[in-house]
Amino acid sequence: MSNLDTVLNDIDRDLDNSLERLFAWLKIPSISTDPAYADHCRAAAGWLKEYLDALGFEASVRETPGHPVVVAHYGKNSGAPHVLFYGHYDVQPVDPLEQWQTPPFEPRLTTLPDGRKAITARGACDDKGQVMTFIEACRAWKAMTGELPVAVTLLIEGAEEDGSKFLPEFVAANRDELKADVVLVCDTGMWDRATPSITTSLRGLVYEEIIVRCADRDLHSGLFGGAARNPIHVLAKIIADLHDESGRVTVPGFYDGVRETPAEVLEQWRGLNLTPEDFLGQVGLKLPAGESDRTLIEQIQSRPTFDVNGIVGGYTGVGAKTVIAAEASAKISFRLVGDQDPQKISDAFKAFVRERIPADCSVEFVKHKGSGALAVSYDMPALTKAKAALAEEWGREPVTIGSGGSIPIVGDFKRTLGLDTLLVGFALDDDRVHSPNEKYDLASFHKGARSWARILAALAR
Amino acid sequence: MSNLDTVLNDIDRDLDNSLERLFAWLKIPSISTDPAYADHCRAAAGWLKEYLDALGFEASVRETPGHPVVVAHYGKNSGAPHVLFYGHYDVQPVDPLEQWQTPPFEPRLTTLPDGRKAITARGACDDKGQVMTFIEACRAWKAMTGELPVAVTLLIEGAEEDGSKFLPEFVAANRDELKADVVLVCDTGMWDRATPSITTSLRGLVYEEIIVRCADRDLHSGLFGGAARNPIHVLAKIIADLHDESGRVTVPGFYDGVRETPAEVLEQWRGLNLTPEDFLGQVGLKLPAGESDRTLIEQIQSRPTFDVNGIVGGYTGVGAKTVIAAEASAKISFRLVGDQDPQKISDAFKAFVRERIPADCSVEFVKHKGSGALAVSYDMPALTKAKAALAEEWGREPVTIGSGGSIPIVGDFKRTLGLDTLLVGFALDDDRVHSPNEKYDLASFHKGARSWARILAALAR
Repeated sequence: MSNLDTVLNDIDRDLDNSLERLFAWLKIPSISTDPAYADHCRAAAGWLKEYLDALGFEASVRETPGHPVVVAHYGKNSGAPHVLFYGHYDVQPVDPLEQWQTPPFEPRLTTLPDGRKAITARGACDDKGQVMTFIEACRAWKAMTGELPVAVTLLIEGAEEDGSKFLPEFVAANRDELKADVVLVCDTGMWDRATPSITTSLRGLVYEEIIVRCADRDLHSGLFGGAARNPIHVLAKIIADLHDESGRVTVPGFYDGVRETPAEVLEQWRGLNLTPEDFLGQVGLKLPAGESDRTLIEQIQSRPTFDVNGIVGGYTGVGAKTVIAAEASAKISFRLVGDQDPQKISDAFKAFVRERIPADCSVEFVKHKGSGALAVSYDMPALTKAKAALAEEWGREPVTIGSGGSIPIVGDFKRTLGLDTLLVGFALDDDRVHSPNEKYDLASFHKGARSWARILAALAR
Repeated sequence: MSNLDTVLNDIDRDLDNSLERLFAWLKIPSISTDPAYADHCRAAAGWLKEYLDALGFEASVRETPGHPVVVAHYGKNSGAPHVLFYGHYDVQPVDPLEQWQTPPFEPRLTTLPDGRKAITARGACDDKGQVMTFIEACRAWKAMTGELPVAVTLLIEGAEEDGSKFLPEFVAANRDELKADVVLVCDTGMWDRATPSITTSLRGLVYEEIIVRCADRDLHSGLFGGAARNPIHVLAKIIADLHDESGRVTVPGFYDGVRETPAEVLEQWRGLNLTPEDFLGQVGLKLPAGESDRTLIEQIQSRPTFDVNGIVGGYTGVGAKTVIAAEASAKISFRLVGDQDPQKISDAFKAFVRERIPADCSVEFVKHKGSGALAVSYDMPALTKAKAALAEEWGREPVTIGSGGSIPIVGDFKRTLGLDTLLVGFALDDDRVHSPNEKYDLASFHKGARSWARILAALAR
C-alpha cells in the first residue's frame, strides 16, 4: 500500500474523531464583525493554536489591531516544496436567530431531506469546516508517515467576514516568514456535488453604508406629511435609480475596466448547461434578475453587480406608527470584475448619491470594504497538479470557474509575497453560507480532506 | 366675582396639584400598539376611572375585544345641554429610546431653551395632557360651584394610536348611553403659541404594511448577486414609483374625490403667511417636499399624501454582511382628504404593488387602518360659542384650520350618534408628538384648562 493510500485510509477511519475536533471549534461563536464577540474570536484562535501544536506544527497566536492571526509552520527549512495555506476562523453573524432550526453554535450531524448527511452550525462550511479539511489531511499524513509531503505554513485569520482590515499589513510586516512557493486556499465551492472545481477568478467588492438625514427629529406624519422630506423616499429613489430598465448599474463609469468574456470561455460555460431552474430553483426563484442581455452564468461569474444588503428606517416594530423618520440607512455592495477600480467606483457612487440628496438634507457614508477583482493564472504548475489530484479523488475532471465571492487577501499574496494562489473548495450552493442553518455536507468534509491529502502528495512531486 | 372667575382662579391656584395628577397618569406606559403593554393600558384606564369617581362622575371601565374604554357620566338626565367628551389614554411607542433626554415614563417639568416651561413625557401632549385640560376644568367647576355647567359624558379609549379598531362597534352598541348634543375633542393643535384654533377638517388615513418575499432564504450576495432578485430593490422601486417628478401620488384614481380648496379659503390661508422657514425651519428643514405646484399650507392641510413610515430588510446590525435578504417590508400610509374612498385607495394601491412584483416573488399585505377624511360644519352653534370663549382666554380670535392628522372616530360620532364634533386642542408644532422627548407646554396645559372652563360656561347658555 502506498503512503497516500494509508493516509486516505486513516482519514476514513478517523472521520468520527475529526468531526469531534471540528465541533469543538464550531462551538466557539467567533463572530468578527460584532465587537461583543471579540473574546470568542480570541478563543477560536487559541483553540486552533493548541491543536496545531499538538499535531507537531510550531504555532503562535499573533496580535493585530483587530482579532489575532494564527501562524503555524511545519518543515519550514527542509528544502521541500513549501505551501502557504490561508483560511479564516471567524464567522458571519447569525441573525435572524429565530430562523435557525438548531442553535448556530451547537454543531451537530443532521440528515437532509434527500438523505445526505451534513454538519449544521454557523461556520460549518465558511470557513472552519473547509479549513479543517486541510488540517485533517496534514494530521493523517503526519500520523501515517511521521512527516508532511511538503513544508506547510498556515495563516488563519479572524477578520475575513469583517473585511480582513489588518491582514494586508500583517502579511507585509511578516513577508519573510510567510514566503512559500504557492498559496492554497479552501474557501470556495464545487461546481455541483459530483464535480470538483478550482476557482480561477474572484469578484472584487466595494461595501458602503449610507445614512440619509432629513428633519432633526422624527415627525408626526399627520402634521408634517406632505411638506417634510421623508428620508426613506430619498433612499428608495437612490436605490431604484442605481439600476436601469435592463438591469445595468447606472453609476457613471461603473463598467470601466470590465472585459468581455472570451468567446471560447463562454462556449465552455454553455457546455456546463446551467439553467435558471438548476441554480435559482434551489432557493425558490426562477427568473434571473441581472442584466437582461446576459446569460445566468455571466450574471454570477463575469459581470459586476450592485445589491442592497440591508435597509432600515422609521418604525419597524409591531403595529402602526404614523411617523416620518429623521433618518434612514442602507448597506450596499458592488461586486467587481476585471480591472474595475474600487476607489473610483466608491467615489463615483458617492457623487451619484450626493446628487440625489435634497439641499436641506444630508448624507453620511461609512466605508466597510473595498478590493479589486482577481484572476488567477491558468498556467501555473500547481493548478495542473491539483486538477489531476482532484480528478483521482472525484472520478471526474474538475472545472475551472469564476467565483462571485471575493477573497481580497489573495491580491496581497500576489503583490506582497509574489505568490500565485490555488483556490480549491468543497462548498455547495445549498450550504446556506451567511444564512441561518449553514451546513457543510459530510461528503464535502470527508472527501475534502482526502482531496487535500492527494494534492499535498501531488505538489511534492 | 362671577362663578367663572372663581373657577378660573381655582385652576390657577391648583396648578401644582393638577400637574401631580397628570404625572401619576403619565407614569403608566399605556402603549396600545404593542401587546406587551396590555396590562399597563388597563392600569391607565383604572387610574382614570378612580379619579373620575372621586370627582363625582359615575365612571366605569368597559371591556372591548381590545383595550378597555372608560365611560363616565355627570348630570346625565338633568336636562342641561349635554356634551360627550372624547379622548384617549393610550400613547405611541417610545423607540428610539436612546434619543430621549429623560425616560419617557418619568414625567417632569423641564425648561425649554427659550425659557418656556414644559411637561416632558410620552403622552404629555398626545393625549393624556390634552384630556386632563378638560377634566381639570370639570374639577374646578365642581369644586367651586358644586356642579358642572353642562351635563358631561366622557368616552376615553385606549387604542387610538392603534387605529381605534373596536371603538366604532362600542359606540354603536352603546348608542343610547352616549347620546349628547355635541361632541368635544381635545386632540388637535393651536395655530401657534399665541393663536388658539378650532379644527374643522381632518385628513383620513389608509395604513398598510407590505412584505415582499423573493428567495426562500437569505443568500450570500457573492454567490447569488447578479442573478437572484433582491426584495429590497423591488420594494425601493415600488416606493420610488409612488411619486412622480412633481410629487404627485401615482396610484391610479388616487385623486378621485379630492376637491379644490375654494379661492376665499386659499385667500384666508395666504393671510396666515405661513413660510417654509416658519413651519419646516423648526424641525431643521427648509424646502417643502410635497406637490411642487401647491403652497406649503395646501400640502399640509388640503392635499392627500403618501409616506413610508418604516422600512426594514436584510442585515441592519453593526458592520457589514454580504447578504441578499429573503424578504423586505415597509409600513406605508396615505393621508386622505375630501371624498377619497379609503377602500378604493387601498385596493388601487395593492394592484399598483402587485404589478411590480416579479413573477417568482410574492407580496403580503397587512392592513392596519383605514378611514375617510372629515369636514366639520362651519355653522354649528357650538363652534360660534367656543370661538368667543377662546377669544376671551387668549385675547386673540381663534382661527379655523384643517388638520393633517386623522381622528377616525369623529366620523362614527356623526354616522352613529348623529353628532357634530368640536375639535379644540392646545398642542404646538414643536411638541414632538410621536417622537422622542414629547412635551406639552405648561401654558398649553394651564390655559387649556382655563379655555375649557370658559367653553363649558359658554355651551350652557
